[in-house]
Amino acid sequence: MSKFEEKTIHSERIYEGKIINLKVDEVMLPNGNQSKRELIEHPGAVALVAITEDHKIIMVEQFRKALERTIIEIPAGKIEKGEDPKYTAMRELEEETGYSADHLELIQSFSTSPGFADEVIHLYSATGLKKSTSGAVLDEDEFVELLEVTIEEAEQLMKVNRIYDAKTAFAVLWAKQKISTEN
Amino acid sequence: MSKFEEKTIHSERIYEGKIINLKVDEVMLPNGNQSKRELIEHPGAVALVAITEDHKIIMVEQFRKALERTIIEIPAGKIEKGEDPKYTAMRELEEETGYSADHLELIQSFSTSPGFADEVIHLYSATGLKKSTSGAVLDEDEFVELLEVTIEEAEQLMKVNRIYDAKTAFAVLWAKQKISTEN
Repeated sequence: MSKFEEKTIHSERIYEGKIINLKVDEVMLPNGNQSKRELIEHPGAVALVAITEDHKIIMVEQFRKALERTIIEIPAGKIEKGEDPKYTAMRELEEETGYSADHLELIQSFSTSPGFADEVIHLYSATGLKKSTSGAVLDEDEFVELLEVTIEEAEQLMKVNRIYDAKTAFAVLWAKQKISTEN
Repeated sequence: MSKFEEKTIHSERIYEGKIINLKVDEVMLPNGNQSKRELIEHPGAVALVAITEDHKIIMVEQFRKALERTIIEIPAGKIEKGEDPKYTAMRELEEETGYSADHLELIQSFSTSPGFADEVIHLYSATGLKKSTSGAVLDEDEFVELLEVTIEEAEQLMKVNRIYDAKTAFAVLWAKQKISTEN
């Protein structure tokens, strides 16, 4: 049993959506008191650190309704039901960027918002990149612009909050360490 | 206007909770099609990279209901209404860890889940740490264990997924770069 475990007394499903569900759990705390936990269920996602031969990180710019603006992120996508995360990563890389990779390696899996969501992102390193002849194949309702940025450019984009999400911030630090170790 | 902007046609509030709200927006896409966006509102949070004189990172272990297990994280906390994030950071450091800091500096702000949530974490570096005589002052319903880990220990904890959230993963890489630059 986990230390400090909170036992569920009652769970109420508030909303079941296309991407997220919301439930509210009544829990018993370790001291016997009760409390409420508002919890989001999410299928999980993958993201990729794809570095080109000339040491540029492949990124995509897209509008994020939750933030009401466009931000620049590493390629990422939701895991479809039953899909192996590594397959999702391969698929998303090709669809969003038009690159394929010889090899994907898991860097780290992490929870994005452990306080209220079960979303986990599996972050892969993509190597042996090749541009496909067809280019990116976006869904009709997907609006994404491809970018390739140096580490220095990425750090500058972080300073001005155009790179503004946790997975991409992590990816930029990781890529910086990787490139500096290789040189 | 943002590139690729999605205009809100209709917004339905599904749930207003203690920590999060859920709304579902009907949006107009750049190509004129319509789509739905399930969106979580969150007040935002702060987190702290606090490194002791002997190069250990201060962390806390706590149960996270969304993940149904305990994980090890850097100190963090929600921003109370009207609170300056820097003040929140100072307060959370003292309450959760019993340390106070002479100086806080913003490292980076980032969105945790831009696909569905507006939560932003402001990550501070805390320097000039002093242990308070009173120690940590937790709420009655808060169950947190204090840890101090070296960079090597933190990297090992990441490998076995006991450090498992994005802000802490970022913090470990950041701390590693900072300590290696200083030495």
